[in-house]
Amino acid sequence: MDEDAAATALSGRDGTPAKQRRTGGRSARVRVRVLEAAGALLLEAGYDALTVDAVAERAGVHRTTVYRRWGDVGRLLADLLDAAADDGWDPPDTGSLEGDLTALNEEVHTALAAGGPTLTTALIAAGFRSPAAAAALSRFWEDRYARCAVTVSRAVARGELAAPVDARALLVTATAPLYHELLLLRTGPDPGLPARAAAAAAAAARAGAFGGAARAAHP
Amino acid sequence: MDEDAAATALSGRDGTPAKQRRTGGRSARVRVRVLEAAGALLLEAGYDALTVDAVAERAGVHRTTVYRRWGDVGRLLADLLDAAADDGWDPPDTGSLEGDLTALNEEVHTALAAGGPTLTTALIAAGFRSPAAAAALSRFWEDRYARCAVTVSRAVARGELAAPVDARALLVTATAPLYHELLLLRTGPDPGLPARAAAAAAAAARAGAFGGAARAAHP
Repeated sequence: MDEDAAATALSGRDGTPAKQRRTGGRSARVRVRVLEAAGALLLEAGYDALTVDAVAERAGVHRTTVYRRWGDVGRLLADLLDAAADDGWDPPDTGSLEGDLTALNEEVHTALAAGGPTLTTALIAAGFRSPAAAAALSRFWEDRYARCAVTVSRAVARGELAAPVDARALLVTATAPLYHELLLLRTGPDPGLPARAAAAAAAAARAGAFGGAARAAHP
Repeated sequence: MDEDAAATALSGRDGTPAKQRRTGGRSARVRVRVLEAAGALLLEAGYDALTVDAVAERAGVHRTTVYRRWGDVGRLLADLLDAAADDGWDPPDTGSLEGDLTALNEEVHTALAAGGPTLTTALIAAGFRSPAAAAALSRFWEDRYARCAVTVSRAVARGELAAPVDARALLVTATAPLYHELLLLRTGPDPGLPARAAAAAAAAARAGAFGGAARAAHP
């Protein structure tokens, strides 16, 4: 798996539509250019700098094209996230629950703490300003958590966990400390955090905290 | 313990300085009025409506008083959080680790999901606009997590956990899912979430995920 694409996919860090879409028609190419411009402006200067006019200028398209297709900045951000979601991303498959959760958390850590502001953090900040962006972010994350459910079903299939397991609760427990530390507490990059948060969530899962009791044969 | 005061204390939901400060001198009374006005404006209309002039008018004090003492909106918010922190709050003491974490999470849930926007969510949103507010929020939370360490040392003293335990990691694991669900994923109030997140963190702690292995006598 292309690591950079995966980090992008998980988090909308880059958020440009998948490459194959660039080969579409003129309308598809305009969408790519406009969404790339919106992402770049958001990352560089934040939500306050994000006007339809500024995006159109950056993308080199007429402003009426942007107004007609997206209407406002909130819908531009929503489309940016929808494009990022539509990328065929699959969660990491490392062979163990804790390994999968760690790899997932590494992607989240990269998206939130890549040595400065990222498109993910800019989009989250925008979510506090624009209800449309907030709703698109919720959809994006719910889709990601739904795709990650396979991580949990693989753990059940391997006998690491006993069904039923609340996959979403397990995944939120694994990833939430990263968002909390890096986005709200602003403790800065912590290379050990992805593995520690994954280990805690896996331990809770093995202890049956998410509905599936640990099988006796597993530690 | 006064539940409302505790919820306030944990989260800055209300954020007005402690009552005894109202009996201070004229300067202290002005501070209370100005900070109450800032909190009310932030809650009602958000960060964009928060100007020094608007706060002064709401508080009924001269604008130069506010400019001289606080200088700008960021420092007003920082002082609001510092005042909220300085309230003698102690974490709940229910007699068990899981009970304590659940009670703590109930307070967080109330602060984040009290049937609409709260001062806590308004302050967090402001943190994405003002570096001073963000830094004050970090200080506020670090102080709260430090006070909550007693929750973990009581669990060790009762024999629920074996020392050493990384108290901060345990507390972040317990509380982070609430911030993630209610603030970022926006899944809405979930009365069962405080107990579920507390149970998962306690299970991980008993399994030794935060450095202390579970003692054999405990489940």
